[in-house]
Amino acid sequence: MPVHKNGASRLGSRGQPERTRRAILDAALREFGEKGMAGARTDAIARSAGVNKALLYYYFSDKEALYGSVLEHAFQALSRQLIGVLESDLPCREKVLAYAGAHFDWLARSPLLPQLVHREMMQAARPGSPQVRRIAVQHLRPIFRRLAAMVREGVESGEFRQVDAMQFVISMAGIIVHYFTSAPIAEFITGEDPFTRARLRARRGAVLEVIAAALFAPRGARQRRGARPGKKEEAH
Amino acid sequence: MPVHKNGASRLGSRGQPERTRRAILDAALREFGEKGMAGARTDAIARSAGVNKALLYYYFSDKEALYGSVLEHAFQALSRQLIGVLESDLPCREKVLAYAGAHFDWLARSPLLPQLVHREMMQAARPGSPQVRRIAVQHLRPIFRRLAAMVREGVESGEFRQVDAMQFVISMAGIIVHYFTSAPIAEFITGEDPFTRARLRARRGAVLEVIAAALFAPRGARQRRGARPGKKEEAH
Repeated sequence: MPVHKNGASRLGSRGQPERTRRAILDAALREFGEKGMAGARTDAIARSAGVNKALLYYYFSDKEALYGSVLEHAFQALSRQLIGVLESDLPCREKVLAYAGAHFDWLARSPLLPQLVHREMMQAARPGSPQVRRIAVQHLRPIFRRLAAMVREGVESGEFRQVDAMQFVISMAGIIVHYFTSAPIAEFITGEDPFTRARLRARRGAVLEVIAAALFAPRGARQRRGARPGKKEEAH
Repeated sequence: MPVHKNGASRLGSRGQPERTRRAILDAALREFGEKGMAGARTDAIARSAGVNKALLYYYFSDKEALYGSVLEHAFQALSRQLIGVLESDLPCREKVLAYAGAHFDWLARSPLLPQLVHREMMQAARPGSPQVRRIAVQHLRPIFRRLAAMVREGVESGEFRQVDAMQFVISMAGIIVHYFTSAPIAEFITGEDPFTRARLRARRGAVLEVIAAALFAPRGARQRRGARPGKKEEAH
């Protein structure tokens, strides 16, 4: 495939390094998401980002490094957002729904990412799957521990039912993530694109609804109105 | 790698064709589950099944055919079992929990299978992913349609909350399946093997509990006792 003959690229390397880097990461996310680590081609990534290959290799030393950066970039954003919600002073019912909504929205913004991560995760042929291990330990572990602690607090305060916090966190992740990781099967089954705005909106509503139903202690148990997604509650 | 020099194999082709075929399918499930379609080797499958390669190719014309048979064999068993539950005359609360338990148990018996299917599903590089499309259309679509119809009946009878049946079916699948598809990440996060008998038992209990909490109409709403997993209910 053609490489631009001179060093110049459509996205210049001068003056806008962050913008160029970001364009490469965005293009790489698409290519890795569609073809996986093994199938992705840096040629195609450079072309789609509007840069030449030399510039791509100037920013990212090789495909593996680019792949690591794509995952790191995406999961840093997720982590910042979810930890932000978990450390906010929202009441616990609102907080768990804000968390679920933020996680869902992140997936909806890059629907290929969970597929990429799941595929990578299942590549036992890549021993130890170092990229996924790093993401899990550095980003996901702190998130899930805080989320479980928050669920435990809600159980103790009587806002939440008597659930096992870690088990509930796993169920919640399944309710939120499975729609995205199983999207190709869903499309075979229904013949419909699961990623239209209308379907994503409907799914998001259902996710919050089912989490509230599964987690919140029944109305009256604490003389409280049952919280509904997005509904303001009285202060504790 | 060595191929047995004469046609004889440790598992004879005479007299026990079904047993031989089954041994090859079991070995193939392990190999595909660990390495995926592309990474799996028929050499390794034959050796692990205790047959020579000629015999493997006598039963299955090529790796693709073997792969299709592995999926077909596993999903036929799942389908038979789940459709059996859905067509039984259990009351709807017991039925939905029996369904979830049977789905969970099938996954627990072959924990590599959901990973295999998910990986395959995410191989956009294999255009159209014909094997997964066939499984989805022939096996999963009828199951999910019947399950959704059953949920709708329960909503109409007042046993279940007012949920959107298809959305709930997706959430249920996530609650049941995600533990298995995300097992490698969970292991990175917790440092624990998610597939010990004790952890599978704990997870199974949590799955049934959360589905009941998310789906069953509150006690008293119909002057009924809320059903608990495994608990016999009065006839309708």
